Amino acid sequence: MQSLDLLKQLVEISSDKKAVSSGGLVEYGVACWLRDYVQKNLRSFIVEEQKIEEGRANLFIHDNQPTSLLFLCHMDTVEAGSGWTTSASGEQKGLRFYGRGSADMKCGAIAILAALHRAQEIKKTGIAVLFYADEEYDSIGIKKFVSEYEKKLNPKLIVCMEPTGGKLRRGCRGVVELRYVLRGKTGHAARASSGINAFEGLNQGINSLYELLKTHQDPYLGHPTLNVATVRCGAIQQKRPDNFIVFGSAGNIIPDYCEVVLEVRTIPGLDSEKIKTAFHEGAKKVGVIIESVETKLELGSFTTPNEQLKLVEDIFYEVVGGDMYQDIEQGGYSDVQMLASLWQTPTIIWGAKGDNVHGADEYVDVSSFEKLEISLKKLVEKWEVE
Amino acid sequence: MQSLDLLKQLVEISSDKKAVSSGGLVEYGVACWLRDYVQKNLRSFIVEEQKIEEGRANLFIHDNQPTSLLFLCHMDTVEAGSGWTTSASGEQKGLRFYGRGSADMKCGAIAILAALHRAQEIKKTGIAVLFYADEEYDSIGIKKFVSEYEKKLNPKLIVCMEPTGGKLRRGCRGVVELRYVLRGKTGHAARASSGINAFEGLNQGINSLYELLKTHQDPYLGHPTLNVATVRCGAIQQKRPDNFIVFGSAGNIIPDYCEVVLEVRTIPGLDSEKIKTAFHEGAKKVGVIIESVETKLELGSFTTPNEQLKLVEDIFYEVVGGDMYQDIEQGGYSDVQMLASLWQTPTIIWGAKGDNVHGADEYVDVSSFEKLEISLKKLVEKWEVE
Repeated sequence: MQSLDLLKQLVEISSDKKAVSSGGLVEYGVACWLRDYVQKNLRSFIVEEQKIEEGRANLFIHDNQPTSLLFLCHMDTVEAGSGWTTSASGEQKGLRFYGRGSADMKCGAIAILAALHRAQEIKKTGIAVLFYADEEYDSIGIKKFVSEYEKKLNPKLIVCMEPTGGKLRRGCRGVVELRYVLRGKTGHAARASSGINAFEGLNQGINSLYELLKTHQDPYLGHPTLNVATVRCGAIQQKRPDNFIVFGSAGNIIPDYCEVVLEVRTIPGLDSEKIKTAFHEGAKKVGVIIESVETKLELGSFTTPNEQLKLVEDIFYEVVGGDMYQDIEQGGYSDVQMLASLWQTPTIIWGAKGDNVHGADEYVDVSSFEKLEISLKKLVEKWEVE
Repeated sequence: MQSLDLLKQLVEISSDKKAVSSGGLVEYGVACWLRDYVQKNLRSFIVEEQKIEEGRANLFIHDNQPTSLLFLCHMDTVEAGSGWTTSASGEQKGLRFYGRGSADMKCGAIAILAALHRAQEIKKTGIAVLFYADEEYDSIGIKKFVSEYEKKLNPKLIVCMEPTGGKLRRGCRGVVELRYVLRGKTGHAARASSGINAFEGLNQGINSLYELLKTHQDPYLGHPTLNVATVRCGAIQQKRPDNFIVFGSAGNIIPDYCEVVLEVRTIPGLDSEKIKTAFHEGAKKVGVIIESVETKLELGSFTTPNEQLKLVEDIFYEVVGGDMYQDIEQGGYSDVQMLASLWQTPTIIWGAKGDNVHGADEYVDVSSFEKLEISLKKLVEKWEVE
């Protein structure tokens, strides 16, 4: 399989945050390899290099026709880290190809190139690819693309190559992270009415939030979930010069201070405003005041109905077979959501089988990689825009 | 009023934890003054000095007859502290007598002496007093008394002189303080099922505890109340050599550790076992494990029904008048509970009006002090044991 040689070349090029290549940083070495490959082998395509910051760029590859089918693949990886028993720079062992980025998601990049070859051969137009930067870090690549291409494109299908264990994923939950400081009033526990317990505000806020989450459900994404990640609560004894708050340890003092970090995995119809409203209503029931709230993170959710993915499902059934959709709990947030929501485009996530993504001995299953490539080629073949 | 001179003498004698007197510590100076006073002026009474530790003692004063009416009064005070605009060593200003211990509870000691005088005059027997040590600190005085006199006494009424604002109190809530460490399992928030959230265990435990408290109510003491005093919850990142646990700050990690200090003000029928059972049931609902629980404090509650206090109520009505019973929220735990529960004795708490107990400018209202003295004398006069 020629594609394995190409994958080996791509995995050999470091593309983590410490990587430096000729003229660039992080994923720029991979960008150059992809740009050169397309310019040499896929001459019916144009490579637009979108600079995102000094030494870093996205590649938008298209055929100068309105884009109807958009492939999406990031070029960066997390660092190799330690503990490898195989080569992080890429090596085949039996039915697996090991290496950092082999599954996440350089195999996807190679599968896309195969699909572009097929498009070129059969002169199918409207096919485009975004190879983008910084997915593993701060998503500056996808944000830059959105800001500049929002009005220029309106694809009919997006295919994202994030790892999905060889199955399909037709949505992802969003993420809202909130950081609160709640304030009550100290008092003596013997006289409950002498104070306002900041923890009671948290308890009631969380209960109210659970009630809200119960009323939201998506047939594919399920219920939203809540993670109360850290809590510090007590009666303020001292505020240190570095703003760290020291609490007393007495059981009979009503605590006036509570800080909490909470994160909700959202579904369509649930956003940070609704979450905050529910939490605030609960906290206020017992008189606790929201001293501050910081929305540390807000990323949306999306789903594409099955009906809009008929072609993809047919190809999956034909080439791969078996269970079609990945358990939604196996996938977190995906940057493709930003594009799916931007244009309300039917979107599928489809990566080859593999494991140890972000860990030691990351690998992609060679046969699954092959099937992914065949699938993408078939998709290009059968792709029709009314 | 001669009693004011006696009160001044008693307030002048320091009896806080730093006090040192001839041959003793803390409240020993007060004990000597009381012992000497009784031995000189109340010769029909015997003073038993019960040593509780080196240089400290309780005084049990009785007439060698079975005790039927027991007065209770502690001899120690908290420290004077700062901020006084009057003399902490005692001074009269208008209708108030100021000084540390004036209200809490040296005025009670003087009122008891007046009652003993009346008993001596009218040869009423069965009257006794416990002047005890260490109420403001670790209650070692009352515990020592219980351990030694439990089987020797069985009074029919106990009158405790703790400050009650000139009103009556016929019970007190108990205190249970628990310190928990709860353990869950870390995981990624995108996959809620990958972990067990330690905070969810706390939240469910607290919810379950609130349900329990709702089902308990006492006509006099009301509902029990809960104070969650301090909480630390997060995903363990590091355990320092001093055993302090450092948490990560990421919102997407499920926390595996939660420590909490909680305190319940109990009523009869509610004890630490019931509290723990309810809390554990809640926590376990979500799979969280109780790694440790420490019962830091467990003090009981008591109430005496009105019917058993007819004589006291009649005297209050005659001498004082107005609202008879203090709002239960105005009083915390009282050591007298240990005696009330020990012998199941009808018990009343009755202190003179005053304010700033434990703070600067503590005072007792002179007229209320006088009424208290008259009331105790009447109680002795009218006291009959069938």
